[in-house]
Order: sequence, then C-alpha cells, then structure tokens
Amino acid sequence: MSDERIVREANDLFYAAMTAPDMKQMDAVWAHDAAAVCVHPGREALIGYERIRRSWVAILSAPNSMSIHASNEHVTVAGETALVICTETISLVTEEGLAAAAAQATNVFRLIEGAWRMIVHHASPIPFKTPDEWPDVIN
Amino acid sequence: MSDERIVREANDLFYAAMTAPDMKQMDAVWAHDAAAVCVHPGREALIGYERIRRSWVAILSAPNSMSIHASNEHVTVAGETALVICTETISLVTEEGLAAAAAQATNVFRLIEGAWRMIVHHASPIPFKTPDEWPDVIN
Repeated sequence: MSDERIVREANDLFYAAMTAPDMKQMDAVWAHDAAAVCVHPGREALIGYERIRRSWVAILSAPNSMSIHASNEHVTVAGETALVICTETISLVTEEGLAAAAAQATNVFRLIEGAWRMIVHHASPIPFKTPDEWPDVIN
Repeated sequence: MSDERIVREANDLFYAAMTAPDMKQMDAVWAHDAAAVCVHPGREALIGYERIRRSWVAILSAPNSMSIHASNEHVTVAGETALVICTETISLVTEEGLAAAAAQATNVFRLIEGAWRMIVHHASPIPFKTPDEWPDVIN
C-alpha cells in the first residue's frame, strides 16, 4: 500500500474517532509528543498531546451527537512527513435541532516507529452554502 | 546557527514580506511547489504556489496599509520539516481608521536544496481582547 494511501487511512481514522466517539482510537491516531499541535476552530493552539488530549476528552464526552466528515482530501508525502488538506463537514444534533458547520483543515502526520501519527491538526471555520443557495443541479 | 534559529528567521521574513510589502521577498520565502498550501483567515485552502502567489499579489497590492506581527512562536524541527506555531496581530490603516485582528497560524517549512522554505501557511481568526478588557497590569 502506498504511503499516500496509508496516510489517508490514518486521516480517516481521526475523523472516525471523532464521530464514533472513540477516545482510544483518538489516542492511537495522535503522536504522544510535547510538540504536537491542535487548533480547534476559532481557538488558539494547544501545544503538547497532554493538553490536546484533554480537549478531545471534553469534546467527545459532550452530550450532543456529533458527526464529522472529511472530503476534498489532498495528500502529499515528503520523507517522514505527510500533509493532508481537507474540508470538514460537521453536524451536531442538539435539543434545538440539527446544526451544521464547515471547516478547512490542515493535518500533518509524521512517520514515528513505522506508524503515521498526527502531529498537527489545524481546523478553521469556512462559510458554507445552505441548500437554498445551491446551484440548481437537479432540474 | 541552529535549525530552530534559521527557521525562526525564515518565519520572520514571511511576516516582514507582508508588512513591507515585498512580493520578491514573499517569493523567496515560499516553496514554489504544486503541493504548497495556504489558508487565509476564514477562507478555503489554496493549493499550489501559483494560486497562492496570486492571492499574495492581491493582498500586498491592496491600498490599505497593513502590518502584521508574529509572537508566541513555537518552533520544532524534525528532519527536513519544521513547524512554527505563532500568534499573528494584524493592523490595517483604512480610511475609516485603524482596524486590528488576531489569528492563530501554523506554518510548515521544508528543507529544500539547503534552504528552509514555507510549504504550509494556515491562519485562522481568534478573538482578541481590546484594551478596555485588559487586566489592570499598570496600577
């Protein structure tokens, strides 16, 4: 299997861990490294997996049902570093109904002891079109 | 000079190119690579230096006087890839007065033919405090 394919699967596992939610899988995706970086949408950077992990524990234990889907993945591998650029579509089921959001993500993976581990996740909000603004592709 | 120091200087040159503004210096900072990625605050990713360059030409030729300052730099180097996490403070002089904004940036540099070149710039808006919200550090 090519490195690009393996990195794409690691990226898929990251989003699957969020949707499940599965903190054990999230732990398996990340490099447990003091230099790891995570930027949640609209937030400042968390540096070090210890702080990053606490944020995921909080997010994954929230009572709302969240699902997140990655698309438009663009994967490049150079040596022991891989880069995945993708678009995230996030949906949240809340007591008030369904909420949706979109984000642009930059994910960096590093080859550590034979495994591609996430070393950077940076997600930032992007505007997204609601269905009434979609081009008329059906008729 | 350590790699960390050289990467920090490359990062400084990036922000200096924006403030100058100096497109020639911006060209010198970036990897002229089809896999280069740039995410401007609130925008989708631009992939490939050709598209990225067009965005900088537009930004640097805008009539407003912009200055941008990086702080809280956190630099890590692993092999031929370096990561700079920093906070950006952006100020714009417009006809309506002075505008300010803050962003969280993830910058990735790659060692290409002996030089550290920017391969990823991802900036996303973060809230910032205005002076009347500052803690009272003077009195």
